[in-house]
Order: sequence, then structure tokens, then C-alpha cells
Amino acid sequence: MIVALAGGVGGAKLAFGLSRVLTPEQLTVIVNIGDDFEHLGLHVSPDLDTVMYTLAGIANPETGWGLAGESWAFIQAVERLGGPIWFRLGDRDMATHVLRKQALASGQSLSAITTAFCRQLGIDCTVLPASDDPVRTTVRTDTGTLAFQDYFVRLRCEPVVRGFSFDGAERARALPAALAALADPALQAILFCPSNPFVSIDPILAIPGLRPAIAAARVPKIAVSPIIGGAAVKGPAAKMMAELGHDVSALGVARYYRGLIDGLVLDDVDIALAPDVQALGLKVAVRPTLMRSDTDRIALARTVLEIAKSWTSAS
Amino acid sequence: MIVALAGGVGGAKLAFGLSRVLTPEQLTVIVNIGDDFEHLGLHVSPDLDTVMYTLAGIANPETGWGLAGESWAFIQAVERLGGPIWFRLGDRDMATHVLRKQALASGQSLSAITTAFCRQLGIDCTVLPASDDPVRTTVRTDTGTLAFQDYFVRLRCEPVVRGFSFDGAERARALPAALAALADPALQAILFCPSNPFVSIDPILAIPGLRPAIAAARVPKIAVSPIIGGAAVKGPAAKMMAELGHDVSALGVARYYRGLIDGLVLDDVDIALAPDVQALGLKVAVRPTLMRSDTDRIALARTVLEIAKSWTSAS
Repeated sequence: MIVALAGGVGGAKLAFGLSRVLTPEQLTVIVNIGDDFEHLGLHVSPDLDTVMYTLAGIANPETGWGLAGESWAFIQAVERLGGPIWFRLGDRDMATHVLRKQALASGQSLSAITTAFCRQLGIDCTVLPASDDPVRTTVRTDTGTLAFQDYFVRLRCEPVVRGFSFDGAERARALPAALAALADPALQAILFCPSNPFVSIDPILAIPGLRPAIAAARVPKIAVSPIIGGAAVKGPAAKMMAELGHDVSALGVARYYRGLIDGLVLDDVDIALAPDVQALGLKVAVRPTLMRSDTDRIALARTVLEIAKSWTSAS
Repeated sequence: MIVALAGGVGGAKLAFGLSRVLTPEQLTVIVNIGDDFEHLGLHVSPDLDTVMYTLAGIANPETGWGLAGESWAFIQAVERLGGPIWFRLGDRDMATHVLRKQALASGQSLSAITTAFCRQLGIDCTVLPASDDPVRTTVRTDTGTLAFQDYFVRLRCEPVVRGFSFDGAERARALPAALAALADPALQAILFCPSNPFVSIDPILAIPGLRPAIAAARVPKIAVSPIIGGAAVKGPAAKMMAELGHDVSALGVARYYRGLIDGLVLDDVDIALAPDVQALGLKVAVRPTLMRSDTDRIALARTVLEIAKSWTSAS
């Protein structure tokens, strides 16, 4: 059994690969909810949606969010009525946010709704929000504190980042199914997907109980570096690292995750960093990690599972 | 100044004609809200929307509801997620329901929201919901009591109707602007658009204050028969009349509105009914009333205004 911690794009891609290599019972994906927000009175869960859509094979391959073949009649009509259009909601994607909001308002939990959506979309592995309680990432910037989507979408990550907080995290209860998966005797590895450490992984770890459960698990904990050749594949991870004073490299990622993970998977282009990562006391594997196609995703999933197996037998 | 009472399609068509003949200040349309309902957590106001879309020239000319050139990606995605699809919401139409619900939830009134939508859509006459408080038409049928949209859309008006009630009407406050329009010294006529008497006009009249305000107005009160040649142009009006034991004809309409109106406009095909309508003590005008085109709508508006003028000078 494998647990993967995931944010949006990068996490979803590796989760997709894992879902094609493992049986449904073998894979649990714990997904960040710090990006969630209420918009137009609806409940938007960007990372859950990206993971679901990617696993279902219906994600938009270009944008990294939303659905393939999406249309935009709704948001154009919102504009005609004078409504806000800075967060673009696609016509098909709207169904997810409308049904989710309605179900939440009727008392259903985010995890139960996610399970129902996954069933409808033909996803048979387990996809779990990190909590059923709200956690909201806010971004401290040079120009003030911003709600995550304000920073991420409306301001296009332009303000200089000084730090983050995860509102509600300290009161949020870790999802019992997530804690159970991390404590499962059949667990073989915990994977930190190539997601943003600050705004995808940290909001998960900020929820009481999850970090200790990860620490307590006697299995290899392996991160795949989201930084390749000093740049993020997608999103603001590299810009954030620079602004927060970290080394913008897989070595910076290794330092950030030190104490939490057993080892890091670096991309081939970062082979020169391997000795420095090892010097931190971490294991290292150097592999192709860029996922441009489904084939790449499946290959990386196999690679990471092999690494987990070899690190298990070695330890 | 003219006040028109309107439901959906027929009311919207005459309101459109009136809006092309009168100045913006001269026209107030009071619209039925008995069809309103919550669906998918959104607020749908079918008659307000049909009136707005028709006045703005963006209504679907075939269906009698919704927007021209509409697309259906949203509702298909709802189906994929296992949600209810019996009430089909178009992608563009969704913007209206989402923004309306959000504004209502934030404390705005239905009338303020309607005014804002009208401004955005370039509608310059006054469109008023009959009340800012909820009124919900329920239909007593042979198979039980049904919420209006259950009867109208889900069951396609198939159950045999025994009566109606307008939940909330007795507690609803008539919109002050509607009462003010009916009491305006400049008022020249009150028009009962060719809408369904039972489920479009009656829910308006059921709101305390509106019926007395209409009775008190010293202006011609003129109905345009929604029944032409023994049939409704659109909708279940004729079926309802039959099931409720009324004569399915413009004469049946005249009997139903007797005591409320001064006179009725019959279609040319119903000229034989004119003596019977007059025998009820009502004035009668026989004119072409079928509105197949914008030209027809404008012509009927001119006709009705001329009739109002002649009945004013005659009385």
C-alpha cells in the first residue's frame, strides 16, 4: 500500500502514473485543501479537482487545471451581468463546484463528496482531502496578506512572498481515513509528489496529526523534487524559494524536507547535486522525472516504487 | 404610465412590445415570482428571467425560456457527476442563477438584483418582482400536492390539477415600488398580459395589498386573453381551465377575471364570444392578439394602449 501526498498538477501527474501501476486498493492520495475557496457562492477545490480530473483522464493537458475540451459560455455570461471574471470557471467544471457546494450545504463532508465524484468519474483508487474541515492558505507578501487565490490567480503570483499561514489548520481534524492509511500495516511507502512544498505539501502537514503519523510510519518517505534544473516545472515554487531565501534547486528542496523524508529523487539534470543532498544525510536517486506524457507518468511511478522497494530492503 | 402584470412567455412578449412603444419611464412590469425555486443550491426565477431576456432581445425564440444560442456543457457535466438533470440549466443562463443566489445570500433583495441585471442587459423600463419575499406556487393534483416546477417541468403538467396554493403569499410584502406604480397619479392603465391566470397572475394577486391597489386604481384594467380559439398559445392554461371546470375559451377567462378587470381583448378568431363577454358587464375589443414576431408584439402593444385610451375617454 502506498500513500501519496499531492497538490495540483505535479502531484496529479504522479498520482495518475501510480494509479496505472498499482491496484485500486494499493493507492491512497492525500490531497491539499489549502487552495480551496468560496467563489460566486460555490465551493472550489482546485487541487482535488486537478487530481480527480487527471486520474479520470479528463483534465486539460495544457492549462494544468480544469477540463479538456472546456467551453466558456458561463463566464462570458457572468461578465455580461457585471459579475467577477478574474477566476475563470469553465462550463463543465461548474458542475463540480455547484454540486459540491450543494452537497456541503446539505451537510455532506468534503471527503464523502469526493468519494462520490470519484465513483462517478470511474476513479477506483482512494482520493482523500487532507481534512473535512476548512484550511485556507494565506500568503504574506510585500503588499499585505492575501487569500491564496487572490495571490495565485488574480495577482498571478506577482507580489513578493514573505511567508504563509494555513488558516483553520490548527483546528482542523486530519481525515480519519488519511490517518488510517498512514498507520496501515500494509503501508510500503509515503511519497511526496513533485508538488509545491510551501503551498501544496505544507498545508497538509499543518493539520494536527498528519506530520506525526508520517514520522511514525516505518516505511521509506520519498520526495520527488518539484525543482528540476533550478526551475519549477509549473507554478511559483521556484519564485517562492528565491523570495524566501532558499537555494532554488533540488538541494533547496532537500534541505526544506530534511527531517521529514528519507530520500529525494532528483532529475538526471541535477546529478551534480547528489553529493550535497547525500551530505544532508538523505538518500538520493537520480532519474528522469519530467512528466510530459502518460508514458512518462507511468514510468516515473514505476521508478519511484522501485526506489521505495530498494530503500526498504537496504534499511 | 402603464403597469403590466406578467408571467413568462406571453407576458414577456407583450412587455417587449410595450417597451418599444413607451418611454422607459412609462413602463413598469410586475412579474410573477410563484415559479421561483431553489435548484442545485441556486435561485431560479423563471418568469423574471424570461421577461428580462425577452426585453433584452436575448431570449430563446423557440423554447419560451432560456437564452438564444444557449449551450449545455454544464448540465451534461452534472449528469456525468450523477446530479439531477430534469431541470435543464443552460451554460449562459447559469450565470443569472449563480449571481442571483450569491447576491441574495449576501443580503441583497430580489428587486435590487433584478434592477442591477436589467441595467447590465440594457433594459431601461422598470421590471419588478411582485415581492422581495418568497412566494411558492404549489399544485394540488390527483396524485398529491406538488411544487410548481415538479409539476411543470419534471412531470410535464401531466397530473390533473385540482387547485393551487401560493405558499408564503399571505406573509409576503408587496414590493413598495409595485404599490407606488399602481398608485401613481400618472398611471393610465393596468394591463393583464396574456399570461396564465392561475399560475402567473393569481400568485401576484395573492400577495396582500396588490389586489386592493389594482381595485383602487381609477384607470382601465385590461386583460389580453391568453386563450385563443379555445387553446393556450403556450403552456398549460387550457388544460388547467378544463381540469378546474372552467369553459376553455376567452369567455372562461372573462368569467375568471370578472370583478378585477374592466374589459378583455379577444383575438379575431374569438369574435363570436364578444356578446357573451359583454353580457358579463365587461368591455370587449376584438383584435389580432397572436404574437409570432417582434412586429406582432409591437402592434399588439399599440393596440392595447389605444384601447386603454378609448376606454378612458369613454368612462
